[in-house]
Amino acid sequence: MSNGHRNARRLYAVIPAGGSGTRLWPASRASRPKFLLPLPGPATMIQATVERLLPIVPSERMLIITGSAHAVSVARQLPSIPEANIIVEPAARGTGPAIGLGAALIARNDPDAIMGSFAADHYVERPDTFRRAVEVAADVALDGYLVTIGITPSYPETGYGYIRAGRTLREIDGLTVSEVETFREKPDEATARAFVESGEYLWNASMFVWRAGTLLDEMERLPPGAYAILMEIATAWDTPTRAATMERCWPQLRDVTIDHGIMEHADRVAVVAADIGWSDIGDWHSLGALMANGIDDQNVAIGSRHIAEDTHSTFVVGQGRTIATLGVTNLVVVDTDDVLLICDRTRAQDVKRIVEQLKGDGDEGLI
Amino acid sequence: MSNGHRNARRLYAVIPAGGSGTRLWPASRASRPKFLLPLPGPATMIQATVERLLPIVPSERMLIITGSAHAVSVARQLPSIPEANIIVEPAARGTGPAIGLGAALIARNDPDAIMGSFAADHYVERPDTFRRAVEVAADVALDGYLVTIGITPSYPETGYGYIRAGRTLREIDGLTVSEVETFREKPDEATARAFVESGEYLWNASMFVWRAGTLLDEMERLPPGAYAILMEIATAWDTPTRAATMERCWPQLRDVTIDHGIMEHADRVAVVAADIGWSDIGDWHSLGALMANGIDDQNVAIGSRHIAEDTHSTFVVGQGRTIATLGVTNLVVVDTDDVLLICDRTRAQDVKRIVEQLKGDGDEGLI
Repeated sequence: MSNGHRNARRLYAVIPAGGSGTRLWPASRASRPKFLLPLPGPATMIQATVERLLPIVPSERMLIITGSAHAVSVARQLPSIPEANIIVEPAARGTGPAIGLGAALIARNDPDAIMGSFAADHYVERPDTFRRAVEVAADVALDGYLVTIGITPSYPETGYGYIRAGRTLREIDGLTVSEVETFREKPDEATARAFVESGEYLWNASMFVWRAGTLLDEMERLPPGAYAILMEIATAWDTPTRAATMERCWPQLRDVTIDHGIMEHADRVAVVAADIGWSDIGDWHSLGALMANGIDDQNVAIGSRHIAEDTHSTFVVGQGRTIATLGVTNLVVVDTDDVLLICDRTRAQDVKRIVEQLKGDGDEGLI
Repeated sequence: MSNGHRNARRLYAVIPAGGSGTRLWPASRASRPKFLLPLPGPATMIQATVERLLPIVPSERMLIITGSAHAVSVARQLPSIPEANIIVEPAARGTGPAIGLGAALIARNDPDAIMGSFAADHYVERPDTFRRAVEVAADVALDGYLVTIGITPSYPETGYGYIRAGRTLREIDGLTVSEVETFREKPDEATARAFVESGEYLWNASMFVWRAGTLLDEMERLPPGAYAILMEIATAWDTPTRAATMERCWPQLRDVTIDHGIMEHADRVAVVAADIGWSDIGDWHSLGALMANGIDDQNVAIGSRHIAEDTHSTFVVGQGRTIATLGVTNLVVVDTDDVLLICDRTRAQDVKRIVEQLKGDGDEGLI
């Protein structure tokens, strides 16, 4: 059955590429957000995102939606993406309007097209499984579902949102598709533990697959006027008024994520559970853990030679200089041209506090 | 009485400037030992040593004895020292031969001259008290004593040698002069504590004052032939054969410190006890403690802006780059152009192990 579906559809991908990534400061900066960085390398995160999709979505059916500050970097990092497919927002409005615009543009020519949306700055360890999950989600999307890919949780992470899976809809290619009962915000530690132990919750990786037309219908849910604004832009897209329309209409959109604006309120939502080795690399600790392959005591170094004397569980991100550590444990060290960060790993989520302090000091050069 | 003495004598100073300073790596290197560094700054240690002595010893009566690798740096850092007073050893032979040569050269013109010898890489917080102690020591030296300046210990340091003071000889200018009973090697912690509690021990700062002739007589104690070799060099010094004689004779001398070679065996040894705020800045921890003025919890930064979020007792030595720390305590961070060191403060004495490892790796560029 699924093969019949697959032959009948053409899959598109929308990749919103935004975010400040302050928790990966000082490698990430306002001018150089996470998706432009080679984490874990050698490809940058947005390059890896495109590579991961290419076997199922040709580059001419990928749309990158990014801010004006990053358009040049994106264009250079992704030479295989056609010029017309890199869309520059005049201002950041969150993933809701960005993905909505993608849907409106795709639906112009192909309203029954199936599209997925995938963040430009997430890590996937098992791309084969990821692609299989996308294909399954696409099959389910043909039936009018908003489909999300939920990640089998491997530990009680408090930095992620969760999805409670309900009634099983199907089993396809060894993957279970369920109705979504509810989306849950980032839980506290005890709640996260209960979620994982219950076996009923999945991590929300903000990976979505749907028919372009289905999403456009849902766009009515966005703050008043969003649907009409997006349709006005899409109508003007292939005309000489595109730039003027974009400039006039885009700022009127309100900033909202696709999760809050659409998914948490929609009716026909399904989830494909998949164990794809996903991480949003939300902070240095999680990147270090990823690169240590789960070995707790391991020292990991990228970009620099690390001389580790009596050093444990330390993650070093360098830029060529030799880094020597002695008698320390559980540190993150990030070495850049103009700033050095040394941080206890359990405090990695608070790196944004340093960025806030610099902002408060008016020290724009370092943020 | 002491004023009469002071008018009658001319004080010389010999400053042996050597040592590899591996414990202050990576700021100190083989090519840039501790005495050439601005610790704690802004003057370099050898500049501060000269400045400290200038009120009682004019620059034409100072002799700097250094290795060929550092002669150019010394010449540039000390423009006020006459060329003829910067003496370059063809090979390092320890403080014994270096100070012995100083004595032999001084005694050529002025055998009754009083001379002091002072390391080029020690810190003195109270230079006035230091100078007073040197003047008192010079008074005592007139009577044929080998005089050392002993430091009132402020805590049970295990990294220093100790001097046990015996019978009081005099009180001059509020300072007590005693006979020395014994020199003690670096003690273990319990012994150091007992030393400090007894009130009978002083730190050995390797600061010595004596008549040039008295020291030369003692030079007979050095490994066979040292006295004759030094006299041969001194005799040739103002002749065209100086270079040839130095080249031929100097390598025959054996490597020995003035402490081991002379002081520990001599008979008429006196000590002036003085509270001059001395430190040999033997490692990063001791420099940090010095700069924190005894405040345990204090963060101290030199050379860089330090953004300290939830950071305690951390000592940062930078070279301009901003250094941010988060959730860490008791660290030493030393930032240089090509190497970064991060070290637990209690392990500061083991920094030399990293240097040894680099040496073992044949990585001469970083040591």
